[in-house]
Amino acid sequence: MRLVRIGPAGAERPAVLDGDARYLDISPLTTDIDGAFLAGDGVDRVRDAVARGELTELPTPERIGSPIARPGKVVCIGLNYSDHAAETGAATPTEPIIFMKGPDTVVGPNDTVLIPRRSVKTDYEVELGIVIGKPARYLDSPADAAGVIAGYALANDVSEREFQTERGGQWDKGKSCETFNPLGPWLVTADEVPDPQALGLRTWVNGEVRQDGNTKNMIFGVYHVVWYLSQFMVLEPGDLVNTGTPAGVGFGANDFPFLRAGDVVELEIDGLGRARQEMGQA
Amino acid sequence: MRLVRIGPAGAERPAVLDGDARYLDISPLTTDIDGAFLAGDGVDRVRDAVARGELTELPTPERIGSPIARPGKVVCIGLNYSDHAAETGAATPTEPIIFMKGPDTVVGPNDTVLIPRRSVKTDYEVELGIVIGKPARYLDSPADAAGVIAGYALANDVSEREFQTERGGQWDKGKSCETFNPLGPWLVTADEVPDPQALGLRTWVNGEVRQDGNTKNMIFGVYHVVWYLSQFMVLEPGDLVNTGTPAGVGFGANDFPFLRAGDVVELEIDGLGRARQEMGQA
Repeated sequence: MRLVRIGPAGAERPAVLDGDARYLDISPLTTDIDGAFLAGDGVDRVRDAVARGELTELPTPERIGSPIARPGKVVCIGLNYSDHAAETGAATPTEPIIFMKGPDTVVGPNDTVLIPRRSVKTDYEVELGIVIGKPARYLDSPADAAGVIAGYALANDVSEREFQTERGGQWDKGKSCETFNPLGPWLVTADEVPDPQALGLRTWVNGEVRQDGNTKNMIFGVYHVVWYLSQFMVLEPGDLVNTGTPAGVGFGANDFPFLRAGDVVELEIDGLGRARQEMGQA
Repeated sequence: MRLVRIGPAGAERPAVLDGDARYLDISPLTTDIDGAFLAGDGVDRVRDAVARGELTELPTPERIGSPIARPGKVVCIGLNYSDHAAETGAATPTEPIIFMKGPDTVVGPNDTVLIPRRSVKTDYEVELGIVIGKPARYLDSPADAAGVIAGYALANDVSEREFQTERGGQWDKGKSCETFNPLGPWLVTADEVPDPQALGLRTWVNGEVRQDGNTKNMIFGVYHVVWYLSQFMVLEPGDLVNTGTPAGVGFGANDFPFLRAGDVVELEIDGLGRARQEMGQA
């Protein structure tokens, strides 16, 4: 299923897309697509209601929000594609690199992304986002990870490279600027993504392709990442994990310019939909 | 005022301590001590109700929780005391180092702290915690910071040093283990902390003093930190900022052993109360 949240920012209503791409209202079943909904039997109830034809069709929305309510935390994996690690000049990690973004950076897939004031190196990163559905604490093995994943969403891990790498030591400084985590359009439930390591993911800037990768090239796969994270923190329902970006960003070996106000970034992942963000100025 | 949350974990009720250290129920005024309460006129309403003697006394609680509901984000400043930077062998930062903890690490001031599985270097850090009361976005100067601070609380920025520094590149890996941010006992409103740069802060392990510092030795003071952070992210009401720790931690030049199950860590900051955490095993 493709779960969505539609409507004005801060007042989104939960819905599901049916096979004919119609928006069906699930607000009689849940107030939001959040940790409580994902941890309980919410997804099953929606599936049943769709099958029984019980849901009301909604008009095509003017705005699509993030497909999940504000996460409890946003955890990110750094340098998780060998081609991207190489283009940045970094060594290939021997175990996952973990950093975090502020959960309030999550916005809708087509919302304006604001270039921070005094930014000179704002950059895009298309990423496969994992949405957690059940608590994950000291999982025994990567094989246990599938059971805690609610689904997947298209993420842009927007990054300010000067803030991240030239301003005093830890990456988080360039990762949590407002609007820096567009997410969606959809939360695609895990049953519809049988192999998360076989998804093409792409980025265009002003219509020109920049990233064209595949999740098969992740150094640490989705299940490994979730298992690994659970050894260092408790992942909770509704949390978001960004799993790293393939080659082609502005940072590093490429000669791509960084983003400026007016630029348009488009991103897609096979089966997870497409997003379009125009850059504004904070 | 000293705002508190008392009762079982996950079911705390908001209260205020009066001048006689009696717990007064403020649940008729607010459901929780959270961003909405702090951003509105909640603190003023509590103050008025105390002055008018309208609040009901509660029995002394068996447990004190974190004085604020789960924050939207927990932002930390690294190496912010020159004596601590020196003991770790790091250079004195020329601008604040920013990292993050998962907001779900925040627990009560006297709750058990769990040593993570496979941890060999779990460590304490007494820190002055800033609780944000109004949105802070691109503040013009440090002088504007006082207006967005709701108050202060005693924090322990518990850290696993091997995870933080020897496991692949970013500190966050050693900072977000479950129970790693005891907070409180109180949220002391900012009007009662006229000079946040003149507070003694101390840690004992099993009764032996380990940290004995003063916030006057911060490299970047409280107002500078809040102003600085607001250039890189939006601070929201209810967010927590941990401002760094003075010398005396286990990590670095000292010969102090790291924490083990059964150890007792006690911490205090002048005017912000005292906390006591026994170490357990995850």
